[in-house]
Amino acid sequence: MRDDGRLFYGGDYNPEQWPAEVWRQDVELMRRARVTLVTVGVFAWSRLEPEPGRYTLDWLDEVLDLLHDAGIRVALATPTASPPPWFSLAHPDALPVTADGVRLHHGSRDTYCAAAPAYRAAARRITEVLADRYAHHPALALWHVHNEYGTTCHCPHAEVAFRRWLADRHGDLDTLNDAWTTSFWSQHYTDWAQIGTPRATQYLHNPGQLLDFRRFWSDTLLAAYTDQRDVLRAANPDVPITTNYVLGDWVPVDHARWAREVDLVAIDHYPSAVDLGAEEQTALAADLARGWARHGAPDRAPDWLLMETAPNLIYTAGRMHTKEPGRMLRQSVAHVARGSRGALFFQWRAPRGGAERFHSALVPHAGADSRVYREAVRLGQALDRLAEVRGTVAARVALAWDAASGWALHHPGLPAERLHHHEEVAAAHRALWHAGLACDVAVPGDPLDGYPLLVVPALYLADEATAGWVRDHVHGGGHALVTYLSGVADEHARIHLGGYPGALRDVLGVRVEEFHPLGDDERVALTDGGTGTVWAETVGLTGAQAVTGYAGGVLAGQPAVTRHTYGAGVAWYVSTRPDDATYRRLLTEAATPAGVTPTCPDAPDGVEAVRRGGDAGSWLFLLNHTDRPQTVPATGVDLLTDATVTDAVHLPAGGVAVLREPTG
Amino acid sequence: MRDDGRLFYGGDYNPEQWPAEVWRQDVELMRRARVTLVTVGVFAWSRLEPEPGRYTLDWLDEVLDLLHDAGIRVALATPTASPPPWFSLAHPDALPVTADGVRLHHGSRDTYCAAAPAYRAAARRITEVLADRYAHHPALALWHVHNEYGTTCHCPHAEVAFRRWLADRHGDLDTLNDAWTTSFWSQHYTDWAQIGTPRATQYLHNPGQLLDFRRFWSDTLLAAYTDQRDVLRAANPDVPITTNYVLGDWVPVDHARWAREVDLVAIDHYPSAVDLGAEEQTALAADLARGWARHGAPDRAPDWLLMETAPNLIYTAGRMHTKEPGRMLRQSVAHVARGSRGALFFQWRAPRGGAERFHSALVPHAGADSRVYREAVRLGQALDRLAEVRGTVAARVALAWDAASGWALHHPGLPAERLHHHEEVAAAHRALWHAGLACDVAVPGDPLDGYPLLVVPALYLADEATAGWVRDHVHGGGHALVTYLSGVADEHARIHLGGYPGALRDVLGVRVEEFHPLGDDERVALTDGGTGTVWAETVGLTGAQAVTGYAGGVLAGQPAVTRHTYGAGVAWYVSTRPDDATYRRLLTEAATPAGVTPTCPDAPDGVEAVRRGGDAGSWLFLLNHTDRPQTVPATGVDLLTDATVTDAVHLPAGGVAVLREPTG
Amino acid sequence: MRDDGRLFYGGDYNPEQWPAEVWRQDVELMRRARVTLVTVGVFAWSRLEPEPGRYTLDWLDEVLDLLHDAGIRVALATPTASPPPWFSLAHPDALPVTADGVRLHHGSRDTYCAAAPAYRAAARRITEVLADRYAHHPALALWHVHNEYGTTCHCPHAEVAFRRWLADRHGDLDTLNDAWTTSFWSQHYTDWAQIGTPRATQYLHNPGQLLDFRRFWSDTLLAAYTDQRDVLRAANPDVPITTNYVLGDWVPVDHARWAREVDLVAIDHYPSAVDLGAEEQTALAADLARGWARHGAPDRAPDWLLMETAPNLIYTAGRMHTKEPGRMLRQSVAHVARGSRGALFFQWRAPRGGAERFHSALVPHAGADSRVYREAVRLGQALDRLAEVRGTVAARVALAWDAASGWALHHPGLPAERLHHHEEVAAAHRALWHAGLACDVAVPGDPLDGYPLLVVPALYLADEATAGWVRDHVHGGGHALVTYLSGVADEHARIHLGGYPGALRDVLGVRVEEFHPLGDDERVALTDGGTGTVWAETVGLTGAQAVTGYAGGVLAGQPAVTRHTYGAGVAWYVSTRPDDATYRRLLTEAATPAGVTPTCPDAPDGVEAVRRGGDAGSWLFLLNHTDRPQTVPATGVDLLTDATVTDAVHLPAGGVAVLREPTG
Repeated sequence: MRDDGRLFYGGDYNPEQWPAEVWRQDVELMRRARVTLVTVGVFAWSRLEPEPGRYTLDWLDEVLDLLHDAGIRVALATPTASPPPWFSLAHPDALPVTADGVRLHHGSRDTYCAAAPAYRAAARRITEVLADRYAHHPALALWHVHNEYGTTCHCPHAEVAFRRWLADRHGDLDTLNDAWTTSFWSQHYTDWAQIGTPRATQYLHNPGQLLDFRRFWSDTLLAAYTDQRDVLRAANPDVPITTNYVLGDWVPVDHARWAREVDLVAIDHYPSAVDLGAEEQTALAADLARGWARHGAPDRAPDWLLMETAPNLIYTAGRMHTKEPGRMLRQSVAHVARGSRGALFFQWRAPRGGAERFHSALVPHAGADSRVYREAVRLGQALDRLAEVRGTVAARVALAWDAASGWALHHPGLPAERLHHHEEVAAAHRALWHAGLACDVAVPGDPLDGYPLLVVPALYLADEATAGWVRDHVHGGGHALVTYLSGVADEHARIHLGGYPGALRDVLGVRVEEFHPLGDDERVALTDGGTGTVWAETVGLTGAQAVTGYAGGVLAGQPAVTRHTYGAGVAWYVSTRPDDATYRRLLTEAATPAGVTPTCPDAPDGVEAVRRGGDAGSWLFLLNHTDRPQTVPATGVDLLTDATVTDAVHLPAGGVAVLREPTG
Repeated sequence: MRDDGRLFYGGDYNPEQWPAEVWRQDVELMRRARVTLVTVGVFAWSRLEPEPGRYTLDWLDEVLDLLHDAGIRVALATPTASPPPWFSLAHPDALPVTADGVRLHHGSRDTYCAAAPAYRAAARRITEVLADRYAHHPALALWHVHNEYGTTCHCPHAEVAFRRWLADRHGDLDTLNDAWTTSFWSQHYTDWAQIGTPRATQYLHNPGQLLDFRRFWSDTLLAAYTDQRDVLRAANPDVPITTNYVLGDWVPVDHARWAREVDLVAIDHYPSAVDLGAEEQTALAADLARGWARHGAPDRAPDWLLMETAPNLIYTAGRMHTKEPGRMLRQSVAHVARGSRGALFFQWRAPRGGAERFHSALVPHAGADSRVYREAVRLGQALDRLAEVRGTVAARVALAWDAASGWALHHPGLPAERLHHHEEVAAAHRALWHAGLACDVAVPGDPLDGYPLLVVPALYLADEATAGWVRDHVHGGGHALVTYLSGVADEHARIHLGGYPGALRDVLGVRVEEFHPLGDDERVALTDGGTGTVWAETVGLTGAQAVTGYAGGVLAGQPAVTRHTYGAGVAWYVSTRPDDATYRRLLTEAATPAGVTPTCPDAPDGVEAVRRGGDAGSWLFLLNHTDRPQTVPATGVDLLTDATVTDAVHLPAGGVAVLREPTG
Repeated sequence: MRDDGRLFYGGDYNPEQWPAEVWRQDVELMRRARVTLVTVGVFAWSRLEPEPGRYTLDWLDEVLDLLHDAGIRVALATPTASPPPWFSLAHPDALPVTADGVRLHHGSRDTYCAAAPAYRAAARRITEVLADRYAHHPALALWHVHNEYGTTCHCPHAEVAFRRWLADRHGDLDTLNDAWTTSFWSQHYTDWAQIGTPRATQYLHNPGQLLDFRRFWSDTLLAAYTDQRDVLRAANPDVPITTNYVLGDWVPVDHARWAREVDLVAIDHYPSAVDLGAEEQTALAADLARGWARHGAPDRAPDWLLMETAPNLIYTAGRMHTKEPGRMLRQSVAHVARGSRGALFFQWRAPRGGAERFHSALVPHAGADSRVYREAVRLGQALDRLAEVRGTVAARVALAWDAASGWALHHPGLPAERLHHHEEVAAAHRALWHAGLACDVAVPGDPLDGYPLLVVPALYLADEATAGWVRDHVHGGGHALVTYLSGVADEHARIHLGGYPGALRDVLGVRVEEFHPLGDDERVALTDGGTGTVWAETVGLTGAQAVTGYAGGVLAGQPAVTRHTYGAGVAWYVSTRPDDATYRRLLTEAATPAGVTPTCPDAPDGVEAVRRGGDAGSWLFLLNHTDRPQTVPATGVDLLTDATVTDAVHLPAGGVAVLREPTG
């Protein structure tokens, strides 16, 4: 990356929505806010190519030049997330089709099938045009391919491509039939032509088909990405290329797998909680991004980039919550603390019209004379002061995450309807966060050196390799804490027989015969005074010792949490979702003997402490999420104020400090 | 209208459902109940034209003659709201299509596309047949075109017609692109053929497209109406023509605009609350109808007609609530009090079968030996006694209402999901109603002479003309009370930039930077002891003074309600939804300096007082909605009892009085 | 049936999902559990006929031989509930279509239209192949046709078949138009081609069309069944044939009518309540099955068979509830107590994959070393001991049930949305169950000899014959208790005019003018201290006397429950849903003068007592559903323990006893 040493600060900029006189005002306002990077051209296809093959790029030339002259760099986007109306009129077969067979029409965005040849060809062509023109533009810092890959389709193109993908994956029909257990409900396939996408059907779908459909889409969308990446790379190998991830179990993207193909992991993050939950979600999203980034080129630091977040709103429960003063800055610094190369926002200037007219912006409808723009200026100043921060988060806990487990736990026919891998990961992460224990996200198979403690929440799918990954970690002296719903099924979502958690029975020293999913408001008492929700199960001890038991209900007197010495290490099993305080205590109990301690043991509740650094130094980020002043013992120099801290930082309510810590 | 001086009383009559011997019983029962008008022929198409071009009208001749002989007049309906099965078999392309592309089938009602040429032609033909035969029938009092226009369609005919309408409205594609802000999400159109109806798409629709689609349907349905109206008018220019409005924000009908094309505004009214809310809804519906009626021919009084209401049920929350004894009469008189020319019901006789077999009727399944028929007889007697009432309601408050704002506030992408223009109008109206302040409904642009106070609730769309309408009113000495969500966007739903409430900032003397929509159960305290719900916002004072402030939450200490002296007048701004008592007090505070006082200041809570009249006299309607006797100071002669009232009316629980007030 | 004197015990067995070595383990485990019957081949079509016309039956030969060698008998299934993928590829027109016109695809189960000729032909062919090969196999005990007939379809084949069925039923269009009241909303049909299935339409469907559509499907599915039955019968007239009913108002199957065509009524039963409700549902399902079984061949006892239930789970509210220890046995014995010829389960062995991978099984994922398999062994032992039980339940109450009323109360346009015949039957049955009053289910028209009391809950549809059935029963000296929503409409769902409950006014001596459906949480007080829910109505007395009155609300002081002496008998009318205790008391009050007494008057609350027997003896089943030991006065020999009981049975918590009672 053409790194000038500053953090990225800015966001999506859509000059195509405004007359040229506004561009000049924008650039001036960006300068005042110390904006360093703007994403240009997302959704500009119809402006760039108003008719097939006729390109109108002069306006973009002018915009890039204006920005360059002002010292603002550009993440230039390919506009392929929204083909122009002329495209769908010419290629109606490239419009997406729902599982019900409804052909979707243009008039929104993402109205294409990524498996449709015409779409892929058109996307490559517009990418070529942009590459030809701008690959060497001096403002260009980064290519931003597409936007939030995530759509699926059931059209005939998708069906054909799915069959081809299945043939590649499974080789022959016998293998596929076995993987999908098509002996159930007479689904045995004898010809590839019999296999379709999981379209609307009479009753429950085949889980193997559903899972492969998600995998197919991850690969198909990735191919659509690499199509463009290869064009851009060829035009100028020096410009890094990325695409912005959208998060969620529903997204048919294996983010870690994709990380190998991007030069910089970039995420869009839109919290859905209005209270402290938003901060918890922010920390998890950042840790996920950093974890995925570890799958990039081996010589690269796990840098990543917050590509989009909303400046001044949190969308939740059907309404927009306006952020409290100072929160935009605090959340931005939180991302930087966890490794983001900056803070970019959707969007620079609020649009007059269009579907997202009320989406938040650094320059709101009210204009620059507004609280949010004034906070944007202050944020620019703050980020400027953080430029020296380097290195990654000092974490000694690995937290397992797996895209496919997320997909599989959304299948029908599970013991309960509302099971979510992401939610279970979030629950574990929240407990770690409140315990002050920094963690890195690990995908099964990731090296676990330097992580004395591995936390494995609801890792539903575990093939032999994944089971071996946990087993070897513990056998070699590591500690692991595994929760319910882990290791239940193999990579094709087929149950491991003989008792749950199938693939992990040996390392955990337990054998579960029966699940007891709990009702929405149901709680089960534990012997340590805590409570469990979501889930419970009949845990048989086959080597492990009970740590905590169920204290009520049909499981009263049976183990709830167990501990198993295995090889040189220790494996915990947690068969319910403990309440937050219990979960936090449990993780602390698992961490302590592993030699893992909090980042900042004396930080008060509600103050987030993150230490980031490496050879270049050490920086302690302190974020006061409470509405009261807080004091945290620490030493160093606060980059935001240049104040020297000798014993303690005094944070105002909602305040932030970033200490350059003394070395040695 | 061929007015015999009596109020209209009766309802939908469907002789086609019954053998001829029942017709004779019906006419006798109608006579006993003093029925004056029945609507005949709605949904009778398949009986009138059982095969294409074969007409069987003899039965209708007989029915009209029977009614005429009994002195009962007829609103003769065109039956076009339900084409016969043979029609859809012959013209499957005229069946409606949903946004998902699902072609709807006959077997219910309203299974046509009003933009389909075959439907329009068939509708004109059957209208011609009826006009030829009955335009001079002595029983004919009124033509009742169609029924509750309100359906939309996404079929190819609708698509073509939509494009044509758009070309008429916008002239050229540049103008349309600008109006719809198609620069957002790459939706720029370069050929009319690229534009479709807002069919199912991947994500959020374009708000401009959605808004124009509603406008297009209002115009298309109106054209379907005027097709028939012109046929009927040509056959006999002396017979008035109308169609019955169905109410609701979802209805793609601009009722005020349509009022210019009907000879009498007619509404169907079905309250959805079972308690006092039904009475509040009744008052609002009546005031809306009277307000729309002001858009008729300039020489006409704002008469209107309650064309349908249910005699004995209120449908709510998935069940039918049976009305309490006396309530049918009280609600009927409430409509007359507010200007209705009578009270018509759906329906005369309850059907044996069909989808609405349990819809209420004046002659229920139990037959004439029933409470409801006995109350129908009493109602006929009462209405007979009110024949002398003339003139309109004495109102000095204008309440703004705007169909397009109702449509626009149902768009996706707004700051909150559950925003409704109609609900906001209803909240203001409810507060006025409880404060005893009579109001007329005004559409932006309506003359405001005689209305010292203008109330503007959530007038979301305001072009310059609309803003000028409010501004001029205040500048010239008027008072106005404007609520949140007003003036935010222009006529294409594009945001007015520079701060909300864009087009009305100057007259209100406020500038709003940020919205704070509230959660479903969220309340915010106000400094006057009241509470706000639904909405709050950051109100900056740019001339206005704070009247009431927020007392809690992030807005504590900031203005909630403001008052601005502008020109010779005063403009209030209300940035939240006050609780009912606070809203009532606020409106009283706004009304008093404007010289607006309650209709009957001493009426107890729960007694509705409406004064109606004009040159011909003055009548005071008193409706006791409580379950206790009430006393109201008044003088005059009670038309219902002939009793002379010298100081006070004593109303029994649920009782009604209509006083002819002494003149001079 | 080739009866060896033992009860059927076993379940669905799917060897096609497992390699042959597992078959041998299965047979050994079955022997240990004393399994007597397994259902083989449901959903095995793609394994039996992997390509059109190529049959691979060797594996099935081997399985049947293995089972036979182990003394285990087989219910051999035709696999037609899930055609193989090759079938739908060859016959896409035979795939089902929803009311919205969505063509469903294979990949689940039941993806066929039972009216499609290609499907019916293919189903006959595979049935012929199985019949040819196995009709004389010594293991064969029973043919199990298809699985849970219950799907509908709106494809062109279905449409054509529906028209043909309508022509058969109604003869001519005039009759159909009258039956459907097509005079409402202009739906008069003049050509059969105009009539379709009730596909998606603009608004409410015609109730007559909806009702006939259900009837049509019951007959069409039955024809699909008899197609196969006739093939199987022809191959070996000695083997009994059945199909497993799925229960619920939504199922388009008239179970009583079908009972004439099966040799043994078989039901699948999956309770949906986790507490005592599951036991109440079990008792009702068993009584329904026995009631339907009375419609079989006249010389047959009302035997029936529990064909499927889940061994160890109850699915409820989006999650699987694991059954408490002992409950599987207790529920199994409950079915036998009420006449089941045994207890079969879905399924023998839990599958590794497929949509129902977490469905419960006698051999769970954990394998035979599990609580559930150990309980299966104990259940086998217990059922073995019950082999001597013969005869039917000693019941003197008849409880009316009617499939068509269930369908009609799901129509739109009723006075309330949430009305259910089945739920009303269940409420009455629950009250009888708690009162200890054994009942038989009767379909209108069934002989009522031996039933002094007839209970008629919400028998919405009553033609003259049905009304006569109730009337004659009472007139002849019987007692009847009829609830609201009975007798309201005729067989075409047309309202009986003149007052509700139309067809039953005379026998009940009441006339109802108005319904007052209650809100979800609404309760109305009764004068006897009880409360009513769901419904209330204005009951006029035309011969009956008030027994209980409404004590609050608008109906205060009016009758709620009435009693009418009619002919030599007594007819009660209950116009609301009494709370459980009141309902129970009311039924006891109605039963006592009819000479009907509880099965076991001294059984404590929560202990279910069922007496079964006949000429061969008498057996008293005692089921303790409480979690405390209970004592019940009784004498006899407990078959489960061989203990002689001289005065009382001491049941442990959750325990069961089956006493052979002394005769004479």
